[in-house]
Amino acid sequence: MYYINQNVKNLKRIFDQNSRKEYLRLDLNENPGGLPQSFIKQTLTEITPRFLSEYPETLEFSESLAKFLGINKENICLVNGSAEGIRYIIEAFTEPGGGIVGVTPTYAMFEVYSEMYGRKFIPVTYTDDLKMPAERIIDKLDTDIQLLILVNPNNPVGNTYTDEEFEMILSKANELEITVLIDEAYHYFYPKTFMKYAFNNRHILVTRTFSKLFSLAGARLGYVVGCPEEIEVVQKLCTPHNVNAFAELFAQRIIETPGMIDDLISKHNEGRRYLKKKLSEHGYDYEGDYGNFIFIKPNTDAKDLVEKMKNAHILIKEYDGVGNLGKCIRVTTGEKKYMKQFLDALIKLDK
Amino acid sequence: MYYINQNVKNLKRIFDQNSRKEYLRLDLNENPGGLPQSFIKQTLTEITPRFLSEYPETLEFSESLAKFLGINKENICLVNGSAEGIRYIIEAFTEPGGGIVGVTPTYAMFEVYSEMYGRKFIPVTYTDDLKMPAERIIDKLDTDIQLLILVNPNNPVGNTYTDEEFEMILSKANELEITVLIDEAYHYFYPKTFMKYAFNNRHILVTRTFSKLFSLAGARLGYVVGCPEEIEVVQKLCTPHNVNAFAELFAQRIIETPGMIDDLISKHNEGRRYLKKKLSEHGYDYEGDYGNFIFIKPNTDAKDLVEKMKNAHILIKEYDGVGNLGKCIRVTTGEKKYMKQFLDALIKLDK
Repeated sequence: MYYINQNVKNLKRIFDQNSRKEYLRLDLNENPGGLPQSFIKQTLTEITPRFLSEYPETLEFSESLAKFLGINKENICLVNGSAEGIRYIIEAFTEPGGGIVGVTPTYAMFEVYSEMYGRKFIPVTYTDDLKMPAERIIDKLDTDIQLLILVNPNNPVGNTYTDEEFEMILSKANELEITVLIDEAYHYFYPKTFMKYAFNNRHILVTRTFSKLFSLAGARLGYVVGCPEEIEVVQKLCTPHNVNAFAELFAQRIIETPGMIDDLISKHNEGRRYLKKKLSEHGYDYEGDYGNFIFIKPNTDAKDLVEKMKNAHILIKEYDGVGNLGKCIRVTTGEKKYMKQFLDALIKLDK
Repeated sequence: MYYINQNVKNLKRIFDQNSRKEYLRLDLNENPGGLPQSFIKQTLTEITPRFLSEYPETLEFSESLAKFLGINKENICLVNGSAEGIRYIIEAFTEPGGGIVGVTPTYAMFEVYSEMYGRKFIPVTYTDDLKMPAERIIDKLDTDIQLLILVNPNNPVGNTYTDEEFEMILSKANELEITVLIDEAYHYFYPKTFMKYAFNNRHILVTRTFSKLFSLAGARLGYVVGCPEEIEVVQKLCTPHNVNAFAELFAQRIIETPGMIDDLISKHNEGRRYLKKKLSEHGYDYEGDYGNFIFIKPNTDAKDLVEKMKNAHILIKEYDGVGNLGKCIRVTTGEKKYMKQFLDALIKLDK
């Protein structure tokens, strides 16, 4: 009899809409401005027929990236966007029926992969005032749980963890022998990292991406950091040549270009400060001191506002049911000119 | 207790060696010459900061590719190299303990994925004189088998199937309700395709790649063709944005550039004809009338020869135990100048 995997067959997937090219895209936390054209032009001069026709090599870039991060290449597994790393961690360190605890709402793929692989996802919701106390997470941990997923800082609300909170959670996970995945997609916008826990302790993994601050979402590149023992298992799950040569080339040139990362951060921060100041002046409630996104309570219905903004050629994302804020919008933050364009439309349309 | 997936932990993986850049690479069936520099230069002018910073869109390219293939976009799922498509087909249409039948030796990932996902791989070996009669495959099919994998033409020997043989195999698979995967990585070098079976019949899937004739191995792009019902399931397994924007751009420009594919084929064929003529003149036994590779019985020990060729800066691949030929080498075929370089080294070193 023909076999069809029922977990997959019954899975609901939402694929990001296409035809976004004509819009100012503030819905997926991409960098709306991107990298400097001169840097791109220079980097593209390195592309030869053989660069394209030959399978990509990872050794050189893995070593560079490890050096850049102050760790060893045995602590790193390169992946085709951090979503692939998250998938492999779930495949490697949980089994069918095993429990996965994660803060929700956040990046949708944690729950999607849990369903895809027949794991049991146990959500931790925010308090009414959008807080995420450590105890709330710890309460969900028990011996049926195989994986705890934390996002630092968490999207869309932007909450973070103090060292004390993090160590309290970690201590409980350790006691119950639960693997911990910390998704740091928004690192560099928020400098506090828990990466040192990943390469100093077994069973703790960090995922990072080049899609956010590093502005390479189109190229697809992420990485998993952990102890050599866990990284070896994640590496064994990789599809051959999962990371393409373009992504490695651009990432390599970014990390070795002096001042580039600082420039990207400072351009972002300027736009973000401007937006927050203006939102406050206009009496908006908003959350999120970290990441390249901001969570705003609009004056009018969030769903309608998303539509109106789309008609004005700006894409933003709607959220419902986080704490007691009701329907909110999440807006990607970036260079000041884009924030001004968004704000002008918001003031005009959100009334 | 910490869970670790034992199938993955115990898996043996061989990652392609790095540091191949200084060699003439005839070991992985890449195009040693690659695409024309002028075409690459022109295509790269389309890359902007937003091209890089935004998540790739697949709709436009999927539609173009479907039109190019004469099918609908619902018949296609884009993947990060055909290896990813093969993986998803195994995940979707087989279960732990389920049987997978495949001709061996061939592309190693069929067996690797079978082990990774706890499936049972049942190899079909060649006859002593390197033939693969349909009956030999049919004999392995029974009600425990969930997937049959055929490679058309098969690597490394280059065998193929007549319509009659293929329909005989298909009829048995159909009777036993076994899903069939046909890997056509080497299509375009060998024009006969079974793709029409995939979009006209349920439970038959074809994988293709842009890494071989299309010379984009560094970019990573493949696709799965099948009926909308199966393609939908494969699509649901995809990691978000699994195909990068560079791969789509280059693939798009290749399929719409008049004469480009014909030129690639004709350059390859000229080199291949030259190599075969010279091999015959020098008294070599070889197999493989199709694909961009040739399977040669060397005069000296194949393993030693691979080493000697490496010292001469040429990479080739060694095989053992196919039919009764003993140790052989597989050499990628390509433009005449590379074939001449290989042949000169072979004549000098294989004695």
